[in-house]
Amino acid sequence: MAKKNGSRDLARWQVPAGGKGFELKDCDPSAKPCSSGDKEADKLRVAELAREIDALQDMFWADRRFKLLVLLQGSDTAGKDGTIRAVFKETSPLGVRAVGWKAPSELERSHDYLWRIHHEMPAAGEFMIHNRSHYEDVLVPVVERWIDKKTTEQRYRQINDFERMLTENGTVILKFMLHIGFDEQRQRLQERIDDPAKHWKFSLGDLDARKQWPHYQQAYDDLLRATSTEWAPWTVVPADSKTHRNLMIATLVRDKLQSLKLRYPPDNPALKGLRVV
Amino acid sequence: MAKKNGSRDLARWQVPAGGKGFELKDCDPSAKPCSSGDKEADKLRVAELAREIDALQDMFWADRRFKLLVLLQGSDTAGKDGTIRAVFKETSPLGVRAVGWKAPSELERSHDYLWRIHHEMPAAGEFMIHNRSHYEDVLVPVVERWIDKKTTEQRYRQINDFERMLTENGTVILKFMLHIGFDEQRQRLQERIDDPAKHWKFSLGDLDARKQWPHYQQAYDDLLRATSTEWAPWTVVPADSKTHRNLMIATLVRDKLQSLKLRYPPDNPALKGLRVV
Repeated sequence: MAKKNGSRDLARWQVPAGGKGFELKDCDPSAKPCSSGDKEADKLRVAELAREIDALQDMFWADRRFKLLVLLQGSDTAGKDGTIRAVFKETSPLGVRAVGWKAPSELERSHDYLWRIHHEMPAAGEFMIHNRSHYEDVLVPVVERWIDKKTTEQRYRQINDFERMLTENGTVILKFMLHIGFDEQRQRLQERIDDPAKHWKFSLGDLDARKQWPHYQQAYDDLLRATSTEWAPWTVVPADSKTHRNLMIATLVRDKLQSLKLRYPPDNPALKGLRVV
Repeated sequence: MAKKNGSRDLARWQVPAGGKGFELKDCDPSAKPCSSGDKEADKLRVAELAREIDALQDMFWADRRFKLLVLLQGSDTAGKDGTIRAVFKETSPLGVRAVGWKAPSELERSHDYLWRIHHEMPAAGEFMIHNRSHYEDVLVPVVERWIDKKTTEQRYRQINDFERMLTENGTVILKFMLHIGFDEQRQRLQERIDDPAKHWKFSLGDLDARKQWPHYQQAYDDLLRATSTEWAPWTVVPADSKTHRNLMIATLVRDKLQSLKLRYPPDNPALKGLRVV
């Protein structure tokens, strides 16, 4: 029952195709639409879902009809790394790969911005996780004003076309925007500063991005509306609670995999009665 | 104490550099040099080691001085997939990648045989697992007599030079040969045939390779002697017992990581007392 209620409640966090009526400010980062109300129970549920996802990956691999791309966006400290760890904890490295996107190299910059992305798409039977993504190319350049409105609109269209081509060729795309509040980010950054053992995870540049917070929120608002499509919709994940964030994403990944009606290949009559010597 | 004894016993399964005095037939595939004698206790120990390896990967990533390549060879059903699942079960996909090598594509065949391998080497702070490897290029062609003795010797040298270059540039290489007995393989293949749900994992070609068993054993014997080096030694892992195989490899991976004296980067004095607003 919890599962059914969960799925129903979750639908409203999916940005409608075309974005009509959607505004990021209507999304409360501290909401917990998936929670049972008991944090310990929620944590156990995440572990259980991670095991289900592992079992589904085995069938996904055997089935070979699909490829899975899980794409995570969100500001610094929003919890992209933690999500990957929790949701795919039980999945063998043979079935899942994660790529973290950073600023492009000189070679990468000399190509179109989708060139390096295309290269890291999942193959048949694979799960691929993108930690940040091509959406950085309509976030950073927009906030920094390196590209104008016309180029931005063009990129939205290019991205939608690219993702449509991928889904038409068997890639299932799940896009999650990890949504934390301004104050939650402050606390998480402060924790990194107050713990000298975590200094290596911290860059003063993180504070520069924080100063641009309203601009990033605006850029996200625009891109979520422009690039939530029928073939690759965005889901906003309230992420002030780490446990809830993991629970919601694990639930949606599991639900999507279940909906594919995966199957193991049929038995091979040629092997019936065969004895190995 | 178990740990110390374990490590001491394990040394004799490492092929000496240059291979002097080594013969694969002296290695009993049903041996359990690492076992406590209690299978359930051994399984719990594997799970514990997997958690240690995950903690060490976090530090390995932060440290950034090294790259880790874990290379697995072994005949069909020797347990390469199962090893990866058990030993790296707790490691986040962000820190570990597995590549399974199959017959080369037309493009790959048009390059030298190390070209595609080099591309999939770990970067600083990464663990990479090769499920089969460039050693297939001195196994299959030798057994099938596609290359002569001179070319084979040349490849041994090229591989040793390649691996030396890698280790000199910060890659730690662990090479494991999963060693199962002829009868154990028979049982495992028969199980796949007898379970129709596992037919998709089975190819009649697996039986052809089995017919060549003595030739493969000879090819392994030669390559283990020729390519066990000071910089990248081979370890033969008795693998008739799955639990023991996992325990031995997890122990050796953990021990190697511990020996690197990994460290988190120092704290940053510039962050002292900084308040996030």
